[in-house]
Amino acid sequence: MIRQSSSLTTYIVTFSCPNRPGIVAAISQRLFELGANITEAQQFDDTDSTQFFMRIVFELPKGALSEDALKAEFAELAEIFSMNWSISDRSKRLKVLLFVSRFDHCLVDLLYRWRIGELQIDPVGIISNHPRETYVDLDFHGIPFHHLPITKDTKAEQEERIWTVFQESGAELAVLARYMQILSNEMATRLSGRCINIHHSFLPGFKGARPYHQAFSRGVKLIGATAHYVTSDLDEGPIIEQDVERISHADDPDDLIRKGRDIERRVLARAVRYHVERRAILNGNKTIVFTP
Amino acid sequence: MIRQSSSLTTYIVTFSCPNRPGIVAAISQRLFELGANITEAQQFDDTDSTQFFMRIVFELPKGALSEDALKAEFAELAEIFSMNWSISDRSKRLKVLLFVSRFDHCLVDLLYRWRIGELQIDPVGIISNHPRETYVDLDFHGIPFHHLPITKDTKAEQEERIWTVFQESGAELAVLARYMQILSNEMATRLSGRCINIHHSFLPGFKGARPYHQAFSRGVKLIGATAHYVTSDLDEGPIIEQDVERISHADDPDDLIRKGRDIERRVLARAVRYHVERRAILNGNKTIVFTP
Amino acid sequence: MIRQSSSLTTYIVTFSCPNRPGIVAAISQRLFELGANITEAQQFDDTDSTQFFMRIVFELPKGALSEDALKAEFAELAEIFSMNWSISDRSKRLKVLLFVSRFDHCLVDLLYRWRIGELQIDPVGIISNHPRETYVDLDFHGIPFHHLPITKDTKAEQEERIWTVFQESGAELAVLARYMQILSNEMATRLSGRCINIHHSFLPGFKGARPYHQAFSRGVKLIGATAHYVTSDLDEGPIIEQDVERISHADDPDDLIRKGRDIERRVLARAVRYHVERRAILNGNKTIVFTP
Amino acid sequence: MIRQSSSLTTYIVTFSCPNRPGIVAAISQRLFELGANITEAQQFDDTDSTQFFMRIVFELPKGALSEDALKAEFAELAEIFSMNWSISDRSKRLKVLLFVSRFDHCLVDLLYRWRIGELQIDPVGIISNHPRETYVDLDFHGIPFHHLPITKDTKAEQEERIWTVFQESGAELAVLARYMQILSNEMATRLSGRCINIHHSFLPGFKGARPYHQAFSRGVKLIGATAHYVTSDLDEGPIIEQDVERISHADDPDDLIRKGRDIERRVLARAVRYHVERRAILNGNKTIVFTP
Repeated sequence: MIRQSSSLTTYIVTFSCPNRPGIVAAISQRLFELGANITEAQQFDDTDSTQFFMRIVFELPKGALSEDALKAEFAELAEIFSMNWSISDRSKRLKVLLFVSRFDHCLVDLLYRWRIGELQIDPVGIISNHPRETYVDLDFHGIPFHHLPITKDTKAEQEERIWTVFQESGAELAVLARYMQILSNEMATRLSGRCINIHHSFLPGFKGARPYHQAFSRGVKLIGATAHYVTSDLDEGPIIEQDVERISHADDPDDLIRKGRDIERRVLARAVRYHVERRAILNGNKTIVFTP
Repeated sequence: MIRQSSSLTTYIVTFSCPNRPGIVAAISQRLFELGANITEAQQFDDTDSTQFFMRIVFELPKGALSEDALKAEFAELAEIFSMNWSISDRSKRLKVLLFVSRFDHCLVDLLYRWRIGELQIDPVGIISNHPRETYVDLDFHGIPFHHLPITKDTKAEQEERIWTVFQESGAELAVLARYMQILSNEMATRLSGRCINIHHSFLPGFKGARPYHQAFSRGVKLIGATAHYVTSDLDEGPIIEQDVERISHADDPDDLIRKGRDIERRVLARAVRYHVERRAILNGNKTIVFTP
Repeated sequence: MIRQSSSLTTYIVTFSCPNRPGIVAAISQRLFELGANITEAQQFDDTDSTQFFMRIVFELPKGALSEDALKAEFAELAEIFSMNWSISDRSKRLKVLLFVSRFDHCLVDLLYRWRIGELQIDPVGIISNHPRETYVDLDFHGIPFHHLPITKDTKAEQEERIWTVFQESGAELAVLARYMQILSNEMATRLSGRCINIHHSFLPGFKGARPYHQAFSRGVKLIGATAHYVTSDLDEGPIIEQDVERISHADDPDDLIRKGRDIERRVLARAVRYHVERRAILNGNKTIVFTP
Repeated sequence: MIRQSSSLTTYIVTFSCPNRPGIVAAISQRLFELGANITEAQQFDDTDSTQFFMRIVFELPKGALSEDALKAEFAELAEIFSMNWSISDRSKRLKVLLFVSRFDHCLVDLLYRWRIGELQIDPVGIISNHPRETYVDLDFHGIPFHHLPITKDTKAEQEERIWTVFQESGAELAVLARYMQILSNEMATRLSGRCINIHHSFLPGFKGARPYHQAFSRGVKLIGATAHYVTSDLDEGPIIEQDVERISHADDPDDLIRKGRDIERRVLARAVRYHVERRAILNGNKTIVFTP
C-alpha cells in the first residue's frame, strides 16, 4: 500500500548500468547526504549481460529539494556510472491511454480499479476501432473516447491519429486492453517500452489469432494469459506477467473464453500496476519485475 | 482412496462409442441385473466427434460371476453400441516398465509412491541408457535393471531389446521418467496408448531440447511440465496432465531446473495414477481425464 | 458453455436419496423411455451418510412433454427411491436478490457477468444498508434498489422488509456480496440453502471481523476467500468454493485487502455459477459441487 | 542457483536493527572499502515495529580478509546501529538434525534433495521415536540414527538425550519432518529460531491432531501445509511457508492424506532452503522471507 505523508514527498528512482563495485554505496551515500529515507530497495545483477538494475523508493521532507535539483544530483551519479535512469514523484498519477475492441472486460476492470483508487493512473483517453455505441452500458466518466476504425487502407492514417492523441493527451503509457488491431512496426517502435498488451494465451504457446480455440484443439489442461510490452515482433515482446487456470476435457472453446476473461483482467491489471509503480524494467527481450 | 471389501470385487469399466440415446440406461440396467453396485460413474459427450465416453466403477459379490462371464456380458453390450471397451479388476496392480536416463528424480518419486502403496503399480523392470552405477545410491528392491545404451547405430537393435523386455515382463505401461532418448516411430506405434512421457515444459511452449534454457531465454514468468501419451509426433502426444510454478527474473536456468524437478515429478505421478485408475482415456489427439 | 438448440428444451435434474442398487438404472431407463438425451451426468455416493447424489442434464424435443408431465414422471420415481429432488429448465434465469454494503467490487463484478450473459441470473433487486448515493458511479440498469439501514433496534423490522422484498420479487437466491450485516437466526433459517455469502478469509481460519487484519497479524503466506451457504452458525455454513493468493511480509493490511478483492469476486462468482447451474448440492454441513 | 568461483568467497550477512537513515549507506560503503562485490541485497522496513531488516550476499577475493577480520568489521557497524546480525560463508553446509516418526515422506524427500546437492545441508543425525526397522527400505548413507521413544514418563529424560545429540553433533538446525511428538516448552525455547516444523494444515485452520480429518469434516475445498519455526505455543510459531491444493467432495480423508504428502514435502523443503540460505528472518511472531 502506498502511504503518503503530508510532510514528505516520496520518489521512485530506477536505473540500470554496467555492473561494477561501488554503485550501491555511491547512491545510498548520496541519498543519505540529501536527507532521504530509503523505504524500499531492490536490485538485480544480470550476470549474463553484466548489467545492474535497481529500484529505490525514498522519502524527502517536502520542500527540502526541488525535483529539478534532485534530478541534477542523479544526473551527476548517472554520468559516473553510465546509468539509464528515471525518477518520479510517487504521488503523481501516470497518464494512460486505453485501447479496446469489442470485448470490454479488461477495460471495465481497469476503469474500476482506477475509480476506487487501486491503480494510480489517470486515463486520458479511450481508443477503439468500434463506435461508442458498442459500450452503451459503460460510463466513461468523461474520459475522451476516440472512434478510430481501421481497415487495411486506413491503417497508416489512423495510426497517425492515434499517435496525435497519444501525444496531445500527454499519455505516458498505452494499454491494449484486448485491442484486436496489430500495431505497425513504426507504431510499436514509437511506443517502445510504454505500451502493454494482454495476449490471451500462456505465451509462447498459441501465438496469433484465436488462442483459446488453439488451446482447445491441442487439449491442454491449463490455459493462461500474458501481459507483455509491445514490440514490432508480434507476441514476442518482453513478458511482464502471466497466470493460468485449470481446465478439463469438458470445457469447450466458450468455457475457455469465459475462464480466460478472469485470467486476462487480473494479469493485465498486475502488469499495469507493476509498470505504474516502476517495478517492471526492460532488460533486452525480457523484463525485470521487482515484485513486493 | 480405494476401499477394498473382502467380500466384494471392484471392477472398472471404461468405454467409448458413437453417441446415441439409451447407452447409460442399457449399461446401468445390465449392471443392476448382474447384482452390481455402481460406486462411481463419469461420462463425457464429445459434441465435436459425437463420441460418448464413460467410466464406471462397480462392486460385485466375490464369486457371483467369473471375470470371463462378466466380460462376455460386456461384449454383448459392446456389440450393440459399437463400443471400444476395457474392464479390469481394481485390486490388480498394473505392470509398469520404467525408463530413465541420468536424472533420477521422477524414477525415485515413482518408486517411493509404489513402495508406500500410493500407486497401484507393479514395476517389472527399469530400462536405462546409463549403467547401473549411475544409480549407486538407489535400491531397486529387486526390480530387474536393463542397461541399454543407445547410439545412432544401435538404436534399432536396442529398441528391439526394449520391446522384448516389455513383452516378456508382461508390462502394460511404459513410463518415460525423464528418459532422454526419442522413441522411433515404430516403437511409439507399438506402445501407442500405453506409454507416458514427462516433458519438462508447459507444452506446446518449448518443445524439443533444453526447455528450461528456452524458458529462461524467453523470460516467461511461469514454468511447467507436461505428461502426455507418446506418439510418433514428438512432443505432440495427447496431454494427460500439466502444472506450473512461478519464477522470476532472478531465477537462472539452474533454478528453473530445480523448480522444474518438483513440477515434473508431481505431474508424472498424477498422470500415471490417472492411467492406472483408468481415468485417462484417449480421444484422438486429446485425452479425457475423469478426475475424482 | 450452454448450447441451446431451438428445437430442444434442456433440463437439469438433481436429487439425493438413500443409496441402494438400481437408482441409475431406473432413472436412465425412464429418461430413455421419455425420449430424453442425457448430455451430462454426475453422481456421488457418500459412504459416510450412505446418501446418493446425482445431477443429470438432458434434452427433450420441444413440446414432447409439458414441464408438469415431466415433473409427474419424476415424482413417481422420487416416491420409489425417497428422493429429495428438483428439476429446472436450463434456459430460465435464476431470480437473484443482491446484498451489498460499502465495498462494491463483488456487486460490480456480478452485475458485469450478468450484463455480458456469463451468469444465467436475473437480478430482481439490490439491498443495501447504505444509501443509493454510495454507489453514485454505478448504473443499476433499472434493478430496484432498497436502502434498508440496520441498527440494533431496527434489525428485526428491517429483516422483515428484506423478507418481503425477497418474496415479492420472486427471488430464488440471495447473494451477500460483501454485505456486512449478520443475518438473524430466523432470517438465516428462512433463506436456508438459498443464500450465499462471501467471507474474506480462507475459512476456517480468521472467522469474524477484519480477517485481513487477522491474517496480517498472524503472518500467513497465503490469503483466501470462501463462498458458503449461510446458516445461523456464523462463518460455519457449508463451503461451496475457496481460493487463495500468495502474499509476502512486505504486504500490509491494505495490500491484503486489495489482493483479497480479486479473490473474493472470482470465488463468489464461481459459487453463484455453481448454484445457478445446480452443481452445488447441500450435504449436511458440507456441499457436493459437481464441477464440469 | 549458487555459483561458486574458485577465487572468490561468498558471504551472506543478515541483520535487523532499529530503522534510521544511513544504514544502507554505511554498510554498502564499508563493503565497497573492503573490496566486496554485492551480488544480492534485499531489505524490509517494518513500519509497525520500526525495525529494519536486510540480507546481503557479497563476494570477496579469497584470502583478502580472514573471516574473523570480516566479523570484526561488522561488529563495529553493528555496534553503531544496534544490529542483531549474523554472517556466514555460503559454501559451508548447514548441519541439520532430522526428526521423524512413522511417516517418512518428508524425511525421504529432504535426504534426496541433500543427496543430489539441491539443499546445502549436512545431515548430522536422524532422531525418531520409532525403531530403525520402521525405515527398513531407507538407506541413511551413514547418518547416525537415534531411536528415542517417548512416553509421558520418559519425555523429560529423552529430550535431554535429544539435546545432547543436538549439541554433540554440532547441529545448527532441527527439522521436524513429520515428527509427531510435541516438544516441551523448555526444548522449544532451547531450539528457538533453529527448529522448523511442518504442520499438515493451512494454519491457523485445523490446529492440533488429525488435521486432514478435521478438513474433511469441515468440507473445505483446498487443503494445505504450513512450515513454521517451533515455539512453545503449539502451531502458533512464525510461519515460513505455506501452500495448498484443490480437493473435492469426492476426496475422503485418505485422499487428503495422499494429496497432503505432496504439499508437505515441498513446503518443508522450501522452508529449509529459505533458512539455509538465510532468507528467513524472525520478526516477532512472524517471519520475513526474502525470496529470490
